[in-house]
Amino acid sequence: MNFDILIKNAFIITMNGTCDIVPKGFIGINSSKIEVIGRGSSSGVKAETVIDAGGNIVMPGLINAHTHSPMSIYRGMADDIALFEWLNEHIWPVEKKFVTEENIRLASELSAAEMIKSGTTAFNDMYFFSDITADVAEKTGIRAVLGEAVIDIPVPVYKITEHHWKKTAENGSRNSLVTASIVPHSPYSCSETLLKNIKKVSKKTGVLVHTHISETESEVEHIMKKYKMTPVEYLDRIGFLDGNTVAVHCVVLTDNDIKILADRNVKIVHCPQSNLKLASGIARVNDMLKAGLTVALGTDGPASNNTLDMFSEMKTAGILQKGILKDPTAVTAKDVVKMATICGARALGLDDITGSVEAGKKADLIIIDTKSLHMTPMYDPYSHLVYAAKGSDVDTVIINGRILMRNRTLLCIDETSIRKNTVLLAEKIKKFKQSLKHT
Amino acid sequence: MNFDILIKNAFIITMNGTCDIVPKGFIGINSSKIEVIGRGSSSGVKAETVIDAGGNIVMPGLINAHTHSPMSIYRGMADDIALFEWLNEHIWPVEKKFVTEENIRLASELSAAEMIKSGTTAFNDMYFFSDITADVAEKTGIRAVLGEAVIDIPVPVYKITEHHWKKTAENGSRNSLVTASIVPHSPYSCSETLLKNIKKVSKKTGVLVHTHISETESEVEHIMKKYKMTPVEYLDRIGFLDGNTVAVHCVVLTDNDIKILADRNVKIVHCPQSNLKLASGIARVNDMLKAGLTVALGTDGPASNNTLDMFSEMKTAGILQKGILKDPTAVTAKDVVKMATICGARALGLDDITGSVEAGKKADLIIIDTKSLHMTPMYDPYSHLVYAAKGSDVDTVIINGRILMRNRTLLCIDETSIRKNTVLLAEKIKKFKQSLKHT
Repeated sequence: MNFDILIKNAFIITMNGTCDIVPKGFIGINSSKIEVIGRGSSSGVKAETVIDAGGNIVMPGLINAHTHSPMSIYRGMADDIALFEWLNEHIWPVEKKFVTEENIRLASELSAAEMIKSGTTAFNDMYFFSDITADVAEKTGIRAVLGEAVIDIPVPVYKITEHHWKKTAENGSRNSLVTASIVPHSPYSCSETLLKNIKKVSKKTGVLVHTHISETESEVEHIMKKYKMTPVEYLDRIGFLDGNTVAVHCVVLTDNDIKILADRNVKIVHCPQSNLKLASGIARVNDMLKAGLTVALGTDGPASNNTLDMFSEMKTAGILQKGILKDPTAVTAKDVVKMATICGARALGLDDITGSVEAGKKADLIIIDTKSLHMTPMYDPYSHLVYAAKGSDVDTVIINGRILMRNRTLLCIDETSIRKNTVLLAEKIKKFKQSLKHT
Repeated sequence: MNFDILIKNAFIITMNGTCDIVPKGFIGINSSKIEVIGRGSSSGVKAETVIDAGGNIVMPGLINAHTHSPMSIYRGMADDIALFEWLNEHIWPVEKKFVTEENIRLASELSAAEMIKSGTTAFNDMYFFSDITADVAEKTGIRAVLGEAVIDIPVPVYKITEHHWKKTAENGSRNSLVTASIVPHSPYSCSETLLKNIKKVSKKTGVLVHTHISETESEVEHIMKKYKMTPVEYLDRIGFLDGNTVAVHCVVLTDNDIKILADRNVKIVHCPQSNLKLASGIARVNDMLKAGLTVALGTDGPASNNTLDMFSEMKTAGILQKGILKDPTAVTAKDVVKMATICGARALGLDDITGSVEAGKKADLIIIDTKSLHMTPMYDPYSHLVYAAKGSDVDTVIINGRILMRNRTLLCIDETSIRKNTVLLAEKIKKFKQSLKHT
């Protein structure tokens, strides 16, 4: 056997259909794909590059199924305030001035680098200038599902134009790292006609539709007032819900909503930290899992969470349902690892190529250092991944067969210059915000 | 000016009475104490050891106000199961065999090292063989409040004996790093007579009393059935509650309970992650803060949480109340940093010597690397400490004027041998558990 890359001495968490664990094994990678998963010693196996995992966990890369990655430059700019104030007095005025192609590029680079450093190998994004984020994803080497956020109520900054559709088409024609999506913001910010048109395009092209649904009580009240039904019921009535729909948040759901979502095979993205921090509430994840729904995990945007660390998100997802339901058996550690890997891939329609360690799939792998004090001793790897690990425990990241990080050093992007440029930009943003206060 | 240690180029978060921030300053340390906090450049200031903070955050070390540190060897041994099963089938049988002086020493070392690495400079512990944990704390150099856990209902492993009191007295006579406490387990596991006797000793000696109160609904039901009042009402009736009482968890409280706790100036320790993970529920922290109560923060034991990372705990404390109360302004980032520093010190009766960066206080300081991607850019340091930072961002730790960690390398204890010995011990524990299954 001869490979491009051999990972040996690996404690492999596969997340395949039977969630097999290989306590000592090796993985052979050729080009972009996993070719062989072997048990025991790799002696006799040759490769151009050999990575000795040293007994550490090798697992599928994490999938951040919902974020707004170009908002990283606003991380922590305003917290602990109401949504309306956050948008009107902080985010929108600053976006109006600072959403430029150059800044979107920098912010996308910052997010891509942060995600890779904390073990995320694919992300599903919602923002503007998605062609630039796509360009950054390609150059950096991270897998991404990208579309141009669409909205058609008057907002201070944006309006829908023809170029959104053009960008979506462009994203679709890119290489295999970037997959296109159509991204209507939400049922309350997009008209019925727009949503119907989007679904028509999606059905014709097979392109994923990524949207926020039922994030807050006020959103549900708004739709209830307008249509005399819940957002989920309304979207179902207009034929919007199907297996190609990624519904983010789903915090405020009725039993009937859950039934509809399950019947239509809609994919759910749970963002527990954002839902708590923005005071939206707590999604009924345990009920959704029981209803057979595919639930993925997302950090939401770094302006509201305030990091892109999927390990931190996994811990919150793991403990929150237990506390709310007063049931320590609700949502197990293994359930959570599934959400962050194979279910994320399934939600994004990428489970044929990623989300698990299986021969034939793309080599989207991470190595987790389990030798730190807070991971010692290890009785159960799933427990450690959810309840003990941090993003900083990720040692190595491989995406599409390319080594993007080794020994915590990014090989794919210049971390120092990203940081330097972000600090300079943030100084300008601070000054601008200061000037707003004085006018 | 001439110091033992000078920390220069520091972004100082003081957590003093007015929560002053010094964006560029220096700290002069002589012997165990902070002698000077200066603004601007430190040119002309001399010191034996100079630490250039490089513009990073220098702040008071975090105070873990409740843990069971010798349980670190059981980290992740059993999760996602009911408390009764966890205790009866996992923790108690294993403790019965593995609670030895040697293992307590190793587990205490593992915890002390983990706490220092994640920025904790003082901890408040509840377990057995506390003299050994005290010995480890002294040798390692971490500040600790320690007492021997006391319980007088029949439990499989322990019973109260005279030596508990002797140990408490011994802890009290140790050097200033270790402070004594008396540690009745809870109102449901200690008799009224025992609790009254403990309070008598506490009143006479001024020694802190550290106990669990109202952690779960079933505990409250049990006490209600027995005494026709809540645990807090019952403890108040027997004169147990005063400013020297540290009440841990306080998840299930009535309005009247909160009033009593505030009237008696009882100190509260909030353990949000443990309360969620063990399915106990969510403490009314926002109401407690409004009632003027001192609320500190704790991780609880590493067998149930499963780490001792106070940064992770701070994030949960910061976002949880917002989500539950549907109020994004509830419990601000600054509130949370207070909980983890000065309020922790106040809860443990140590606020005259630690919990803030102030001249005259002990030099219990940590330096946080704010140059990582997930901390870039920085608009608000409190926001970053609570919503973005991880334990792994702690670069340097000084306790009592001694540098215990520098550039993430522990200088006070041999991390490699702790890890090696813990792995060996865990293998024995795994084998023993396996043998239990077969009998």
